[in-house]
This record gives sequence, C-alpha cells and structure tokens, in this order.
Amino acid sequence: MTPKFVTVNGRAYRWSERPLVVVCVDGCEPDYVNQAIEAGFAPWIASLNGSGTCLTADCVVPSFTNPNNLSIVTGVPPSVHGICGNYFWDAEAGAEVMMNDAKYLRTGTILAAFANAGAKVAVVTAKDKLRALLGHRLKGICFSAEKSDQVTLAENGVADALGLAGMALPSVYSAALSEFVFNAGVALLERERPDIMYLSTTDYVQHKHAPGTPAANAFTGMLDACLRRLDMLGATVVFTADHGMNAKTDALGRPNIVFLQDALDAWYVAGATRVILPITDPYVVHHGALGSYATVYLSMPAMRDDALRRIAAISGIELVLTRTEACARFELPEDRVGDLVIVAERLTVIGTSRHRHDLSGLTAPLRSHGGVSEQRVPLLANRPADALPSRRWRNFDAFDLGLNHLR
Amino acid sequence: MTPKFVTVNGRAYRWSERPLVVVCVDGCEPDYVNQAIEAGFAPWIASLNGSGTCLTADCVVPSFTNPNNLSIVTGVPPSVHGICGNYFWDAEAGAEVMMNDAKYLRTGTILAAFANAGAKVAVVTAKDKLRALLGHRLKGICFSAEKSDQVTLAENGVADALGLAGMALPSVYSAALSEFVFNAGVALLERERPDIMYLSTTDYVQHKHAPGTPAANAFTGMLDACLRRLDMLGATVVFTADHGMNAKTDALGRPNIVFLQDALDAWYVAGATRVILPITDPYVVHHGALGSYATVYLSMPAMRDDALRRIAAISGIELVLTRTEACARFELPEDRVGDLVIVAERLTVIGTSRHRHDLSGLTAPLRSHGGVSEQRVPLLANRPADALPSRRWRNFDAFDLGLNHLR
Repeated sequence: MTPKFVTVNGRAYRWSERPLVVVCVDGCEPDYVNQAIEAGFAPWIASLNGSGTCLTADCVVPSFTNPNNLSIVTGVPPSVHGICGNYFWDAEAGAEVMMNDAKYLRTGTILAAFANAGAKVAVVTAKDKLRALLGHRLKGICFSAEKSDQVTLAENGVADALGLAGMALPSVYSAALSEFVFNAGVALLERERPDIMYLSTTDYVQHKHAPGTPAANAFTGMLDACLRRLDMLGATVVFTADHGMNAKTDALGRPNIVFLQDALDAWYVAGATRVILPITDPYVVHHGALGSYATVYLSMPAMRDDALRRIAAISGIELVLTRTEACARFELPEDRVGDLVIVAERLTVIGTSRHRHDLSGLTAPLRSHGGVSEQRVPLLANRPADALPSRRWRNFDAFDLGLNHLR
Repeated sequence: MTPKFVTVNGRAYRWSERPLVVVCVDGCEPDYVNQAIEAGFAPWIASLNGSGTCLTADCVVPSFTNPNNLSIVTGVPPSVHGICGNYFWDAEAGAEVMMNDAKYLRTGTILAAFANAGAKVAVVTAKDKLRALLGHRLKGICFSAEKSDQVTLAENGVADALGLAGMALPSVYSAALSEFVFNAGVALLERERPDIMYLSTTDYVQHKHAPGTPAANAFTGMLDACLRRLDMLGATVVFTADHGMNAKTDALGRPNIVFLQDALDAWYVAGATRVILPITDPYVVHHGALGSYATVYLSMPAMRDDALRRIAAISGIELVLTRTEACARFELPEDRVGDLVIVAERLTVIGTSRHRHDLSGLTAPLRSHGGVSEQRVPLLANRPADALPSRRWRNFDAFDLGLNHLR
C-alpha cells in the first residue's frame, strides 16, 4: 500500500498516481518565455494560459544555481538546507571551497523521501556539480548530461544514458547539454515511468543570448517541445527556474564590474578583508565568475560600519547588509555567510580583484545573475489549480504546487 | 563677436564653433544598443569604443519622457525646472491636468539661452506634446514630426518640414515618427548648419519590442545611420536617452499591474485618496498609461503612515516614500508631488482603477518604464574627452559633456 502523504522538512506532499515532472530551467528570466511565445516558438507553453496554472515566483537570493536547485528539491530556503552558494569560506577548514559536496547539505530532499516511501524517482541534471547534491541518499536514477558517458547501473540507476538521450556526449558549454536533459527526461518517462522526476538544465544559452534573440528562441522552442511531450505522456508538469538573467553591460557591451576586493584593499591593509563570490564554480567560461552578489569577511568586527558605508557609496551597488540582516531577509545560514552581504544593481556585477578574473572566455557581452534583480521566475504547470492560497510563491514551492494544489 | 560661455541655470557652457547635436532616444535601454551591435546593426556606434566617449548615466526618476527631456535641455533636475511628469494634480486649479504647457516650466533652457546669445538653434521632436516645452522662448527652428504638415516659417522657423525630411506625414504610432526626426535632423544640419540642435524621438518601438528582436535592431540601425551622417557632416554628436525600458509582464506576457486606487478604495472610503499616474498622456495605445511610478494624494495627513505601510506590503512594490523623502532623493518639486511616491519593481507597473485603463491597444506584451529600474541610460559622444570629472553622470549632463568636456 502506498502512503497518502510524504512529509519532508515540515511540509506534507500528497502521493500522486500521475507522474510529476518538475523542470528547473536554469536562468529562465520570464521574458525568455514571453518573447519566444511572441515569436511563435513556444505554442505549448502559450496554451497554458487559461488551461494551466501560471504564477510568477521569487527564487532564493543569492540568485544562483545551487542554492535554488537545493531549495526546489528540499522545499525550504538555504537557512534550512545549508547550500547558499556554489562556493564559500569554510570557517572550520579555513579555506575557500566548493559547496557541491553532499556533506554540506543539512536536510533531506523530497526526492529521497519519496524514493524511501517506495516511489520510483529519476533525476537528470545538465552539469555534474549538482548531481551529488540532488542525488543525496536517493535510491533511484540520477545522472548528469556532462558525465553521461560514465554512468553505471549501480551508481546512476541506468546503464546507457547516451542511448537513452539518443545523443553523443555534449560539450559542457553548449545548448546541447540541456537538450540532452530534455531528451533523457522524455525517454525516461516513456521507458521507466518514474513517479517523480526532476530535470535541471544549464544556463549556457541564457548567459550569452538575450530574450527574443534567435538562439534564445530556439532554446525555448526546444524546452516547449520537451514539456509538450512530457504532457502528452500523461505527466503533471511543473516548470520553474533557479534564477532570472539580465544584461550586465553598458550600451557598448562592456561589463559593468565593481572589483570589490580591489576597493577594499585600497581602503584597508591587504588581507584585512576577504571577498567571496558564491557564483564561483569550475565552469567560468560563460560568466567569468561574475554575478551580482558577494559576501565579505572582515578581520576585525570594528571595521563593519565603516566598510558598509564605503561599499554602499560605490556606484552600481544596490544593497549592503550585515550578516544578520542578510540572513533574515534572504533566509540564509549565518555560519556560511560573511560579515557583509553585497548586492549589485541590475546591470552591474561584483568581482574580487581585476587580475583574478579571466574574461577571455566572454565571447558575448556579459549576462549574469545573483542579485535581487534576478529574483522573479516563472512557476507554471500544465493543470489548473483549485483556489490557490494567496501567498508569496517561491520557486521552491514547485513540488508543493505539483502535488498538493493541482486538479 | 560671439561669447565664450553661455551660462544657464548655474552652469557655464562653452561656445563651440563646431555644431553640437544632442540626440535623446526615447526609451533607449542600454541593451538595445548592445544587442544591435552584436547583431551587426550598429557599426557606427560600435566604433565609438576607443574613439569616442562612452558613459552610462542616470536619468531622472520618474523615468518618464517629459521630465527627462526638460532636464536635458535645462541641465537641471525637476526640482529646478518644475516638470515632474506628463500629467499632475494642479493643486491651485484643483484638477488633474497635462503638464505640457510652457506655463509649468520654471526655468529657461540651454537652447533658448544659446539662441539669445546669437546661436542658430534647431529642435525636432517626434510628438507634439514636447514641442511647446522644448521650444519655450526659443528663437529658432522648432517643430514636431507629428504636426510636420502644419509648420509655418513664422511659428516653426521652417516652411516645409515634410520636404525637409523627404517623407509623408508619419503616424503618431510608428517607428516612422522617429525616422522623420532623424531625417529632418540630418537635412537641417546639411541645409541650415545650426550651432546647436536637439533631436528627440518616440519610444513606440521600444514599448513593443525587446532589445535584440528584429524590429528593435532595425530601429537602432536607423539611429546608427543617422548618427553616422551627423558625424560625417562634422557635428559633435552626443546621444543619450530619457529613460530605459523593461518588460512588465509574466512569462506568458500578461501585464503585472498593481491597481493602486482599487487597493486604496478597499482600505479607505472612496475619495479619501487620489492616485496620479504621471505617465498619463494623450497617447496611450502603446502603454495603456501604465508605468512603474505613481504619486498619491491623501485627504488627511494622519493617513500617511498607515497608507505607506499598507502600500509597501503589496507584492511588486519596490519603494514607498513620503513627499519629502521622494523630493530629496529624486530632486522633484514638492508642490507638484503627492503625499506619497510609489515605485514598482522592474517587472511591475502601477495602475489606478482597473476600469480606468483601456488595455485594448496593447497588441504586444507590455513593456514600460517610470521606475528606478529604468534609470540607467547610455551617454555617448563621437569625440574623446579629456580627463572627465569623476561624478555621477546624468543624462542632463549631455550639453555639459558635448560643450565643456570633449576634445
């Protein structure tokens, strides 16, 4: 007998006889969908107007990939699950480290809980950096497009991911990496019919192409075709994003960068402050580790007010918050956030020191995310809802919407 | 003998032997230029990188057409020139009225001052609503594309505007209205060689088309060709914008609207508050009088804190300021601003009551402006500058940049 509810992190999720597919489209600023609809590339998504459920939700700030993917699969903010960036200052270890090891995850996922309760669960991500976190303690299928040539039945729950997607191994810097996720997702639903499936793409295209441009429309068209096939196969489909995306340049396409470590080093002795950019990850070609969010560690608490005031006066800076303020406002874990949190304005990003950023990979004008300006994301479903609660919808309500509110 | 300097509103502008053309491109979000360059539509503007002066400036908030055009031609913020919207509550008259009568203008323009000092001055605007304000006390050429079939030598300084532009009278809702301004400007520079020329377009295209889409690129291509011709004719060319432009919709293209008068009427008795939308003008087809800025008059001062708190809690509202706070922050005239000033977030606009907005003209998903999110605009020139002062550049520094700082 299957249970009627599975409770994870304080929320009860209804068991569904119909498969639920949650798709997290990396960097899907709402206008990507809107412009693709206008240009005729997304007829299926357009058809949801009236027949489905169409909300706009707030993602987690910092509006980065890992914190938001983990919030979506746990249903809670980073203050609970602990993942507040791709990269952080590990105070215990005394080192700047990637936060993609499952040891940093402080709570279980909806995916693992359903699998434990007997559901068949499948996860496909674009990049491998997310796989370990999303697949934490998950009994089921879990693999990345990036390492799809290395899957094993024992480790990933499938023996032949390339055959499943019907594609050769895609480059980690390509639209094909996401196409692989879509193809594998559709094939998995056909072949394995999981009860719960989570698909997560990469924002390689969104970092390079603005809404409504040919490459962006082609990508959204590919998404539209995938969602339509999942729908035709009888799944409940919920589609959201980890974060939005904005131009971060001037009119000539030159990036607007505040090199915050350089500024701090000019004001204080070198070493007195440490700027951490949680967007940092091993894949920097498309954004040069430049986003609109940073956190700063100060060597002396007494520096705080002076540093706050100086940083707030820099052109392009939107917000400077103390750790306490930032963790309250953005629901972040205090032990993994610096003394100050800095958010840049919509068209500006924050760097550390000029010499530490390799911008040679930026072959297109910089587009990025991380700030409050990238907080609004779509939250769409292919089925109507009964009267929805009036609340601030979050992208991490995706499973709640899909399992508890749709007709 | 020509004077060496002309002083207007406290700033001295150097007399130039070379013609200066200031072009205000309505609604030119920086990414319109950036995307057009990427797509190969703006080679001349692209060539300014390295050879010209390329700044990003802040426009006046409310980021609307009239306040910004008047700031550009007076060199000062609305607190000095008085024009803080297209539309306002005239407390003396006890009526909501258009603010496009020159009687509302509180200071002289750079244009009129140079004409008085003996310069030949020409002004071409797209819409006629700006002509009276820009041409206030101006001895020179001044006409609008909209009424270009009605010009007279006595009134407008030219006898045949249609012949000058080489075009038929364009529709007020068209890209051709701006094309007319460009053509007339180039022809005027060739034929009349004014010392100072001001060209101001309309944002009809920008309200309908996102940066990088075909119609937007075509428009920027037209702008690029016009600027190149002005440059080839030997003018100093400074190009800026009155405001930026953002999508104001969800992923399905449905407008995100806060109907503020409806909300207030639900909280207080009808008539206790009056919401004024300074974007309101006779031309509503492309934006339905919906922008990201509103001001509210309260019948009783004691309501203020309660109203402020309630409005600030509405989803999509970014800022609620008292009159004093707003006038200090945005440099606005206190006697023409309501008790509260409300700014919406980037993807949201503010309406009065649902029944008062005719959205039938919105044939494309709403794009609009008015908020802080549309404050960043290009400020570009075709000549290099000597060491520029480090300051917050404003779009209303355009004449200062063109006359006082370029080599």
